[in-house]
Amino acid sequence: MQKVAILGIGQTPIGEQWDKSLREIGGDAALAAMHDAGVESVDALFVGNMLSPLIDGQNQLGAYFADWVGLWQQEAVKVEAACGSGAAALRAALMAVSAGELESALVLGVEKMTDKAGHDVTATLATAADADYEVEQGVSFVGLNALIMQRYMHEYGWKHADFAPFSINAHANAMSNPFARLHERISTERFERSSMVATPINLLDASPIGDGAAAAVIVPADKVASLPGRPRVVISASASATDTIAVHSRRDPLFLSAAHESAKRCYEMAGLLPQDLDLFELHDAFSIMTALSLEACGFAERGQGVRLGLENEIAPGGRTPICTRGGLKARGHPVGATGMYQVVEIVQQLRGECGDTQVAGAAVGMAQNIGGSGSTVITHILAAE
Amino acid sequence: MQKVAILGIGQTPIGEQWDKSLREIGGDAALAAMHDAGVESVDALFVGNMLSPLIDGQNQLGAYFADWVGLWQQEAVKVEAACGSGAAALRAALMAVSAGELESALVLGVEKMTDKAGHDVTATLATAADADYEVEQGVSFVGLNALIMQRYMHEYGWKHADFAPFSINAHANAMSNPFARLHERISTERFERSSMVATPINLLDASPIGDGAAAAVIVPADKVASLPGRPRVVISASASATDTIAVHSRRDPLFLSAAHESAKRCYEMAGLLPQDLDLFELHDAFSIMTALSLEACGFAERGQGVRLGLENEIAPGGRTPICTRGGLKARGHPVGATGMYQVVEIVQQLRGECGDTQVAGAAVGMAQNIGGSGSTVITHILAAE
Repeated sequence: MQKVAILGIGQTPIGEQWDKSLREIGGDAALAAMHDAGVESVDALFVGNMLSPLIDGQNQLGAYFADWVGLWQQEAVKVEAACGSGAAALRAALMAVSAGELESALVLGVEKMTDKAGHDVTATLATAADADYEVEQGVSFVGLNALIMQRYMHEYGWKHADFAPFSINAHANAMSNPFARLHERISTERFERSSMVATPINLLDASPIGDGAAAAVIVPADKVASLPGRPRVVISASASATDTIAVHSRRDPLFLSAAHESAKRCYEMAGLLPQDLDLFELHDAFSIMTALSLEACGFAERGQGVRLGLENEIAPGGRTPICTRGGLKARGHPVGATGMYQVVEIVQQLRGECGDTQVAGAAVGMAQNIGGSGSTVITHILAAE
Repeated sequence: MQKVAILGIGQTPIGEQWDKSLREIGGDAALAAMHDAGVESVDALFVGNMLSPLIDGQNQLGAYFADWVGLWQQEAVKVEAACGSGAAALRAALMAVSAGELESALVLGVEKMTDKAGHDVTATLATAADADYEVEQGVSFVGLNALIMQRYMHEYGWKHADFAPFSINAHANAMSNPFARLHERISTERFERSSMVATPINLLDASPIGDGAAAAVIVPADKVASLPGRPRVVISASASATDTIAVHSRRDPLFLSAAHESAKRCYEMAGLLPQDLDLFELHDAFSIMTALSLEACGFAERGQGVRLGLENEIAPGGRTPICTRGGLKARGHPVGATGMYQVVEIVQQLRGECGDTQVAGAAVGMAQNIGGSGSTVITHILAAE
């Protein structure tokens, strides 16, 4: 397998972009990434997206965006793994470049979600769960996460306020990220009195959806030199694993086995241990997912993930910085785009472009993108050279 | 790039499978392919599907099927390129195995379409076209193909009956295919008096949708030996190309430039010319597409594709056998599964398992899967060794 580098990145602000179409949002990020990479074309386009058939009435985003951004006749395809679609598209592109089949690829995560009313979006998000055995019973996606959180609190004795540091850290970090959806500091008091969504998940446990796109251009690493002030960023590891699609089928619903498995494969591939990472962009769709991800990936013992927040280890200056640009919680969660936002943000950290939330000397970062309630997990380790 | 072989194949009958769920249909083909390959597990699953979010309310078919067929924790993802999804999934799997990242992969094309009424299915199929600039104007997918066919007849002076041999050949070949949806010979007279769908496309110009799944297990070629009576089938070439998503954006709507481009790349890769192929499983979603595919891939001059039917060159004993198991027209077109049916059928030909429609001495075959009105085209050449 050939080593692959990230040559350029691009992203759009996340929000309710009613003045921009799906095409324009994705196109903006794609063209920004090509501009940042200094290329006018690429051999292929891989699009990560979950909801465009349901919300925008548009399938076939590969050809759709290749057409729009001027990649005439180039190979293009869409990859879907629910909220893990962004990183799944990156992994597909990585395989093709690694195989020597392509000299370059553009990876675009994109989602336009706010054209539908809230309850319709909730229904489309439920397509990540098991239609026959979960959704048919009336459970929503947040409902499934609420059941998991309830069980976690019961099992390990944590109270709701113990999750507050995760959201507070995410909101604080988003303050200096111009692309973030939310720019608003929060406190434990506010976290505790926020509106209930599905007990025990309240509004400040949950990440906001949004319209947005993030993209990267990847090439064989030997095509890229390290420049002064701009290191070469390589993908040192990539892995994807699955768990049962329905939460009730799991031996232990409090263990993200696919997160564990894909992170383990990445650690082996990169020859690293969890403590070697300078930052971890995890998939904090709900605060419970932050705790479970930290545990599954070796940063905390089972049931002790929340402790990392309570002991203030997760801030940019802490031992395990997470959500350094706001995470899903405050940067926002345009579902199929999220995996690429995580990757773009790690590149920004490795380049030292993160201002107030820059992790000092960041050289290695891990991005973990989750589809469904932990059913598909794609993990990447990026390193500056 | 490592050479890759097809170790096993599986397929289900195509029809209105109301007694089987999406899960069961896909599972049947996947397990049949693993059984045929003689393996109990694989490293990863790649699913090609277009409509399950819209028709079955189910996204994330990677994890969904990995769970169902017992690939616990293995990597799994869905690939979508409208009706080209099946071959797009094969190509993604091929890249990962070629890169040396996986030792084996299962590729599954699957679609369950008949749970919705006809007009709803028509609406979902239109998501392959441009939602903003085509569908918004009220055109359906068959409508777009009708405009292309009308223009072709006008431009080159062919009449509707000249397309009859394509459908007659497909129906005749399906007679001996137990998996085909239609088992019914047709005549030119019947072709001509069939109900109009969208002028000039009538019912016998159009392929029937259906529920169905087809699958294959691929592995590095050096892991497979040629057995007596069962040759090693390798993928000698693979390419994917795109055209504008909207038909009206094309310089020439009568030329399938992405079909031309992806076939050309395959010929170069395999070191072959069109005449070296023993059979060509093309994407005859509508009879006009048969003519245009033959022209784009070098089997006929521009505007002369229909001549191959009229001169009887397309039958299993002819110079360019097409649709040897019934094609989309008579085997049926479960959209996201079709690309894998084509590949499975070529493997059957190369193994000499096709009975009445066996192409004598078949050693090299090409499969071409089209997404949208020619906007994504994925081509593979398979060879027996």
